[in-house]
Amino acid sequence: MEERAVIEELLLQSRERSAEGQVADYIPELAKRTPDRLGITIHRIGQDSMSAGDCDTQFTLQSISKVFSLILALMDQGEDRIFDKVGMEPTGDNFNSMVKLELVNPGKPFNPMINAGAIVISSMIAGSSPEERFVRLLAFVRKLAGDSTIAINTDVYESEAATADRNRSLAYFLKHNQVLEGRVEHHLEVYFKHCSIEVTCSHVARMAMILANDGVDPDSGEELIPRRYVQIAKVFMITCGMYNASGEFAIQVGLPAKSGVSGGILAVVPGQMGIGVIGPALNQKGNSVAGVHLLRSLSARWDLSMF
Amino acid sequence: MEERAVIEELLLQSRERSAEGQVADYIPELAKRTPDRLGITIHRIGQDSMSAGDCDTQFTLQSISKVFSLILALMDQGEDRIFDKVGMEPTGDNFNSMVKLELVNPGKPFNPMINAGAIVISSMIAGSSPEERFVRLLAFVRKLAGDSTIAINTDVYESEAATADRNRSLAYFLKHNQVLEGRVEHHLEVYFKHCSIEVTCSHVARMAMILANDGVDPDSGEELIPRRYVQIAKVFMITCGMYNASGEFAIQVGLPAKSGVSGGILAVVPGQMGIGVIGPALNQKGNSVAGVHLLRSLSARWDLSMF
Amino acid sequence: MEERAVIEELLLQSRERSAEGQVADYIPELAKRTPDRLGITIHRIGQDSMSAGDCDTQFTLQSISKVFSLILALMDQGEDRIFDKVGMEPTGDNFNSMVKLELVNPGKPFNPMINAGAIVISSMIAGSSPEERFVRLLAFVRKLAGDSTIAINTDVYESEAATADRNRSLAYFLKHNQVLEGRVEHHLEVYFKHCSIEVTCSHVARMAMILANDGVDPDSGEELIPRRYVQIAKVFMITCGMYNASGEFAIQVGLPAKSGVSGGILAVVPGQMGIGVIGPALNQKGNSVAGVHLLRSLSARWDLSMF
Amino acid sequence: MEERAVIEELLLQSRERSAEGQVADYIPELAKRTPDRLGITIHRIGQDSMSAGDCDTQFTLQSISKVFSLILALMDQGEDRIFDKVGMEPTGDNFNSMVKLELVNPGKPFNPMINAGAIVISSMIAGSSPEERFVRLLAFVRKLAGDSTIAINTDVYESEAATADRNRSLAYFLKHNQVLEGRVEHHLEVYFKHCSIEVTCSHVARMAMILANDGVDPDSGEELIPRRYVQIAKVFMITCGMYNASGEFAIQVGLPAKSGVSGGILAVVPGQMGIGVIGPALNQKGNSVAGVHLLRSLSARWDLSMF
Repeated sequence: MEERAVIEELLLQSRERSAEGQVADYIPELAKRTPDRLGITIHRIGQDSMSAGDCDTQFTLQSISKVFSLILALMDQGEDRIFDKVGMEPTGDNFNSMVKLELVNPGKPFNPMINAGAIVISSMIAGSSPEERFVRLLAFVRKLAGDSTIAINTDVYESEAATADRNRSLAYFLKHNQVLEGRVEHHLEVYFKHCSIEVTCSHVARMAMILANDGVDPDSGEELIPRRYVQIAKVFMITCGMYNASGEFAIQVGLPAKSGVSGGILAVVPGQMGIGVIGPALNQKGNSVAGVHLLRSLSARWDLSMF
Repeated sequence: MEERAVIEELLLQSRERSAEGQVADYIPELAKRTPDRLGITIHRIGQDSMSAGDCDTQFTLQSISKVFSLILALMDQGEDRIFDKVGMEPTGDNFNSMVKLELVNPGKPFNPMINAGAIVISSMIAGSSPEERFVRLLAFVRKLAGDSTIAINTDVYESEAATADRNRSLAYFLKHNQVLEGRVEHHLEVYFKHCSIEVTCSHVARMAMILANDGVDPDSGEELIPRRYVQIAKVFMITCGMYNASGEFAIQVGLPAKSGVSGGILAVVPGQMGIGVIGPALNQKGNSVAGVHLLRSLSARWDLSMF
Repeated sequence: MEERAVIEELLLQSRERSAEGQVADYIPELAKRTPDRLGITIHRIGQDSMSAGDCDTQFTLQSISKVFSLILALMDQGEDRIFDKVGMEPTGDNFNSMVKLELVNPGKPFNPMINAGAIVISSMIAGSSPEERFVRLLAFVRKLAGDSTIAINTDVYESEAATADRNRSLAYFLKHNQVLEGRVEHHLEVYFKHCSIEVTCSHVARMAMILANDGVDPDSGEELIPRRYVQIAKVFMITCGMYNASGEFAIQVGLPAKSGVSGGILAVVPGQMGIGVIGPALNQKGNSVAGVHLLRSLSARWDLSMF
Repeated sequence: MEERAVIEELLLQSRERSAEGQVADYIPELAKRTPDRLGITIHRIGQDSMSAGDCDTQFTLQSISKVFSLILALMDQGEDRIFDKVGMEPTGDNFNSMVKLELVNPGKPFNPMINAGAIVISSMIAGSSPEERFVRLLAFVRKLAGDSTIAINTDVYESEAATADRNRSLAYFLKHNQVLEGRVEHHLEVYFKHCSIEVTCSHVARMAMILANDGVDPDSGEELIPRRYVQIAKVFMITCGMYNASGEFAIQVGLPAKSGVSGGILAVVPGQMGIGVIGPALNQKGNSVAGVHLLRSLSARWDLSMF
């Protein structure tokens, strides 16, 4: 069967799974999404892109942005300074858990994919103000996605900032632990803003393709990310990119990926392609039900697992 | 031996224990205290008071104030509303722990003697502003202590407010759990202020004597606290008044008591007397080393245990 | 109203509460009990005893036995050796929790009223074999209860021993932590046997009366327990005698008490009386629903709280 | 530089790191090992093997065996039955932790690489007796390693079995949770025996080479393991093969690997080679200090990371 037809067929099968999940409701603005949407775009290195379903749906990056704030902070600070503040290990706890911060010495976040780690990472992006740090990150995302018009969804940003007490609690705990420096509200501003960057599947697929191509833009040949930092990002996507279902995803799909509570998933097929998926209905672990199903089907059909 | 002589003798023995402890240093202003001070005042119902040692030392109430914010909130709101927001059980965890807030449903503080509980209690004192809530509490303390000049130590207050990220973290977590309502900074202001109320042993002993007398001022005969709320306060002092050494204190001393990181201890001998102690050097559990030793010696000598 | 009539009236009101609870089912033999039974016996020091309801129901001591294994071990070993192995603090965790054994140094049980602590205590009763240790404890219980025919319920014992994997797990953890020495199965045998001692309310009330009388048998004048160990037992009953509802019970009833999953409760009114209650339907915390209600009503009516 | 010379040079550099670690002492028999040994053997698919250093040192598989008990259990039971009993996620806790078994529903082990999971896996190997289950596993290891004389080290086995209270505690907890069925001691016997299988670097390297070759013996062309189960094993080696340093190892080395407390490491370079390393001095996470250093150097020199 022709590749586009395969995608169309698998997408229809996966979309039915949306009924098993629910749209995130902890941020009011996210709760308005239509649950049974499902869209996908695939950017293949050096080939045409392919799309299917509701691929034009706009959604906010949410936790997908953690991959790119990490990469930018690594480019700004180098490995040593980043890993002095944030660990490299999966936690087994929820993305917003405080338990290990209190019980495990020295109280630094276990990795940059949980909220505690991502807030610290936000604070380490170079810039003399929160605004400047965010603008640099936005510019980085725009360049990777190949679209200079990308912007934040202001309604989502304001909704997040207004319902952020758990993250605020995390951030003050980190400040108490001396992992976070400076003004907590400034760091949260940067964090909420990069979570609120609005994209489509095509943007996400293009960012994933750059990672699949070891940091080099296949169109221009320009190295946008040093290969070493792409490696690090791919490791975190495998070990903790899909919340507490990362191990399951690695077994069933086998690709470095990062999901967000908006229902988006970024997946990397190293050396081959970048994939962007949107499907707002989430399973209990916080990942897009239909999106995970679609990626699993595609991985099985085309033997994409890196394992 | 005459009672005053007993106290003098035991105080000298206990003062030597100060070397085993350390002055609290998490609040810079507290770290300035002289560690080997030890003072005591005892107010006996219907009898003369007795003092020994450094009984004129001024110190801030710190966690001792939690007893009185609880009583005032009970008087303002009644039992049902208070215990709808705060539990009745000892925790076995540190006074500033967040673990049970995350792991145990429904995420309300286990009791009013840990920081999380005391912050919620502060928010439940009647008043249309943080200022008004604090002024009401201060007036209550002044009345119990019999001194209308009692005030906060501004240096300590500012020092606490400036180093309060762990409490701020707790408070935002409580707000996320919908146990705390309104503006976090307002509640912390009241909380830090009542921790910073400056007293002497005599003040503390008089407050304790009112509790020992079931809420009635023995001088005026006026009921300052309903007996039921005195009962509740005494229960919490027994089960969790001395941080994670409350069980040990109940076994070794056997009196309802509450300690603070300034080194102060309030102890109640029901029906007989109120005791105020100050000894800034703390043991690892956060209680005055010499103060606990002195109370243990007195309890043994005069058979004061309520058990 | 005459005292016996008060008890009858309150018992009828409390018995209706049984429907809110459930008979323990984790031990098959316990699950056979009739849920809506409720009985009480009160032994007053130097006065007649009073009974009402299903006071002749036989039940096993279960956790009530922890009070007496503790006292006997204290009499055998002294305070220092006991508290070298077991702590004095309430935990805030379930009676069979392992979390603090793993997370809190040095891994000794927090107190003798949780299973971990009670198993260690069982191992410290003097005796050259498990059989001898149990026989000494049984003789102690018989003497306190004033009935030399008291024995274990073999069906319950075998049922407990056969469904004891959680306790076995606790015990091996304690052995790993070097808090428990010797053969785990031997210590569990003693522990399960003393949990399976079968009694009536009258037995429990008499044992409680001895505690209320500071360890002295009021009939013979003989000191069966040194007063110091009665004090210690009463402290543990107040701080952790009613599982994770001990704080609530202290506030609402105000008496040293210990409950068991069979639905029995032993309560001490210091200086006045001992109370034995049986009501098999348990609330979520593991205490007799109707039994707690009855004790609360009695305490309020006769103003029995020690606070 | 010629490949063998590279290995020799890097081995010498890495061996110096042994001084930073310590030989495991929790099993008396392991504590006798010489800390500064370091040996390596590499089996390349379709090429000569290479060795350096103390490659003839004999050591027990310990946790390395968990990879092969998992694979054999998968071959015996299929994915569904295995993952019904054991999860797929890294834990962030110690390999012998019980905390998540108690706190996270439904109380099944998070993955097959922690002790709790590996004990359950041992119980799922087909066989009508513990002896038969172990013999089948031993035969499997012998076939993969290409040496029919491989056997257990009896001294180590007896030492493990005698100091196994923490594992015994875990096993009884799992039985209580109904994840483990049958007799606990039987399952522990199988578990301790497969931990005590004695090998050299060459054996481990050959087993790793079979994994690197997707389960096919490159010499005979025979499929010894279905490719799907090799995938699953590699995922677990990446996400939790190196205890709580698995994330760090994935970032710094980038290879599926499994370590044991004997100081052995099995590492897989997919499609290329299998590596066996022995270096008894362990770091705080329980991995061979010099062994990890050597693998990191080799991975950097030859660009072996799969990320």
